[in-house]
Amino acid sequence: MAEPANPAPRARVLIVGCGFGGLEAARALRDAPVDITLVDRANHHLFQPLLYQVATAGLSAPAIAAPVRFLFRNQPNVTSLLGEVVAIDAGRREARLKDGITLPYDHLVVAAGATHSYFGNDDWAVHAPGLKTLDDAFEIRRRLLLAFEAAEKEDDPARRGAWLTFVVIGAGPTGVEMAGTMSEVARKTLPGEFRRIDPSSARNVLVEGGPRVLQAMPESLSASALRQLEALGVEVKLNASVVAIDGNGLEVHPAGGAAPYRIAAKCIVWAAGVAASPLGRQLAQATGAGTDRAGRVRVLPDLSLAGHPEISVVGDLAAAQSHAPRREPRPVPGVSPAAKQMGKTAAANILRRLRGEPTQAFRYRDYGNLATIGRNSAVVDLASPLGNFRFSGMPAWLFWLFAHIYFLIGFRNRFVVLFDWASAYWSAQRYARVVTDIAPEQQSPKPP
Amino acid sequence: MAEPANPAPRARVLIVGCGFGGLEAARALRDAPVDITLVDRANHHLFQPLLYQVATAGLSAPAIAAPVRFLFRNQPNVTSLLGEVVAIDAGRREARLKDGITLPYDHLVVAAGATHSYFGNDDWAVHAPGLKTLDDAFEIRRRLLLAFEAAEKEDDPARRGAWLTFVVIGAGPTGVEMAGTMSEVARKTLPGEFRRIDPSSARNVLVEGGPRVLQAMPESLSASALRQLEALGVEVKLNASVVAIDGNGLEVHPAGGAAPYRIAAKCIVWAAGVAASPLGRQLAQATGAGTDRAGRVRVLPDLSLAGHPEISVVGDLAAAQSHAPRREPRPVPGVSPAAKQMGKTAAANILRRLRGEPTQAFRYRDYGNLATIGRNSAVVDLASPLGNFRFSGMPAWLFWLFAHIYFLIGFRNRFVVLFDWASAYWSAQRYARVVTDIAPEQQSPKPP
Repeated sequence: MAEPANPAPRARVLIVGCGFGGLEAARALRDAPVDITLVDRANHHLFQPLLYQVATAGLSAPAIAAPVRFLFRNQPNVTSLLGEVVAIDAGRREARLKDGITLPYDHLVVAAGATHSYFGNDDWAVHAPGLKTLDDAFEIRRRLLLAFEAAEKEDDPARRGAWLTFVVIGAGPTGVEMAGTMSEVARKTLPGEFRRIDPSSARNVLVEGGPRVLQAMPESLSASALRQLEALGVEVKLNASVVAIDGNGLEVHPAGGAAPYRIAAKCIVWAAGVAASPLGRQLAQATGAGTDRAGRVRVLPDLSLAGHPEISVVGDLAAAQSHAPRREPRPVPGVSPAAKQMGKTAAANILRRLRGEPTQAFRYRDYGNLATIGRNSAVVDLASPLGNFRFSGMPAWLFWLFAHIYFLIGFRNRFVVLFDWASAYWSAQRYARVVTDIAPEQQSPKPP
Repeated sequence: MAEPANPAPRARVLIVGCGFGGLEAARALRDAPVDITLVDRANHHLFQPLLYQVATAGLSAPAIAAPVRFLFRNQPNVTSLLGEVVAIDAGRREARLKDGITLPYDHLVVAAGATHSYFGNDDWAVHAPGLKTLDDAFEIRRRLLLAFEAAEKEDDPARRGAWLTFVVIGAGPTGVEMAGTMSEVARKTLPGEFRRIDPSSARNVLVEGGPRVLQAMPESLSASALRQLEALGVEVKLNASVVAIDGNGLEVHPAGGAAPYRIAAKCIVWAAGVAASPLGRQLAQATGAGTDRAGRVRVLPDLSLAGHPEISVVGDLAAAQSHAPRREPRPVPGVSPAAKQMGKTAAANILRRLRGEPTQAFRYRDYGNLATIGRNSAVVDLASPLGNFRFSGMPAWLFWLFAHIYFLIGFRNRFVVLFDWASAYWSAQRYARVVTDIAPEQQSPKPP
């Protein structure tokens, strides 16, 4: 068959965000006759499940961050751009970047992700940073390590105690792994290096508003995780609401009428809530799609927006449901496998529309759930057609380790991370303990 | 022999700065009956000879930075403190930290190092950062990589050209390795990753006021280095003085009356001058020791200060001379082997004073000089009793590589760096390309 003299212009696909959802959508369109523009605020794809290791000095940033351009160097239909999308004009079919550039599209995939939510207490952010980006991880690493430095110089016992108290708020997967690993830093990594303080005397507290840790897990695994946390030296406070945070500590209200109390602490980490990226709100308004309470954009079963089949929302920004045959639709959890699967479905639906076929509903395949707590400590809830396999401790930790290394993007990083872990495992050392940007007048964690 | 009932208090040795000089002094006192306090503004010892690799995304920061505490964990007579010494009170024998703490001493070793010098043009600093700390390296990495990102988005050919012009000022060892490696990034690492620009069309310029590159080297090696730079794609401008730098480029005056000209460039690196740390001036005033033109403290042959045998100055902060038998004293170059040797001599002289013996003059043992230019490109001038061996190109590069890896502090880093280099060598890739802290309104290098 002869080529047409003037081939139709190729469809322009714009993908906003290069997290798991956006990356997977772009990859799924590898052989498609489309021109893809992939725009992200960062120049790297971040392997977020290991970000807590950067925050606790176990891994260097480049070990878990791959340059976006490098990932797509062999996919010529992808143009990668560094930029922040601030608005979608659904009528003109274009996205506007913060620096004024506009990007037109025929198909749009929005995968802008989520950020922290302080539930209306935005002034807490400066005292209790969350963990979403590499800069967040550097800030937490700075506070964690400099607290021990400040304690070594402090003569007043009360102030020294506050420097040596580390609080994590929220006992979801991130809070549990942060609390467990911060406790390990104090008890395994630092002892022997200080002359005036004993780092293993540090107090590590995990504060959770609900009745158990890892509430997305079955109760038996929550109980196991609690035991493993306590074995690592973490003091877990359940049914405890945080009502105030300042530069010297936090105030906790226990459920059931017990007296509120205060914890004096200089290093506090927020792991209690996420909210959708602000772009979601703008998109929902521009299209009439609407959002849920967490600010996520409501999508149709095929992940597109009502009245806008050319726009899909995937990942943490989407209030999506899983549609399996002969079952009620179920909400999709905010985990990376779900984001990847949504990215793949959105890409497949773009191809179906190009071919004039009907799109398909998104179906989330749940392979289970796993969470790490510390060295040799984890819980796994593995879904299989024969039922769920649940295990914890060392076997769960090994499973978690290899699953994460397997899914790390790019062979080189995988090898480096495995090597770093092997050396950390045998020595209990954490090599990425470099802290920069120490303001001269303030060689202690900010806020002072 | 019975122990005395009240043993004499151990001498207190204060070491300011944990670069090569301070580190070596503390190590040399390992078995001495002294209590050492080691104070530094950073929490890590930096292997500065490889800092240019962090700036050009070849290595991660933790690969060349070892926590000070970790290095001395097994030396119980060392207490490490994070802090910035702002003044020495030579009369009261104490050092004052920026946060108000004072540290008393019986013996003081000042090894506070050097910083950039813009020769009175301090307003150039914002447009042309230098390379001394990890934060400097991150800033240069940011500007280098974001310049290509900005060029990819730029439609105007002149502005695009300025984004793709990279200038290094000063052709000493740092300038030569920065210019060579930045050219490699453009020509080897990035091609194939951009869709609108060709990174290998970048212009890499090295501007030097003197008549040759690497002026501390023999002329034949300078000539070889020049050829190797040009082979890597670097445009070398000799006898060319920089008279102005702003956010869009620099102005160059050639020697000999040729017409001045301007280079439009967005990414400019300063490698033209160093000055002693400001602490040197305060110390010189407090003790009457005096400084040389570069602000370095004048020391006696044994590295102590006139009238203050209890104070030694070592490393880049010292205007020291080498005293070999039957030879005129010769100035000591500002290189890391010299700093290490001075640290060792200062420590040995402290021990001699404790034993009531006379101190010894410092003698610099010069094992030669080497500089790297890029992959497979270097020059080596090796001193030996039989005369100097000079070689360049691939053999020199291999020699440089193994010498640097051998001297890297700590086995782990050595292994990681070797692995990183091996993988970079075979793939021409540079994995540490993560850039953070990209201000939303300014996804281009600052200054805008």
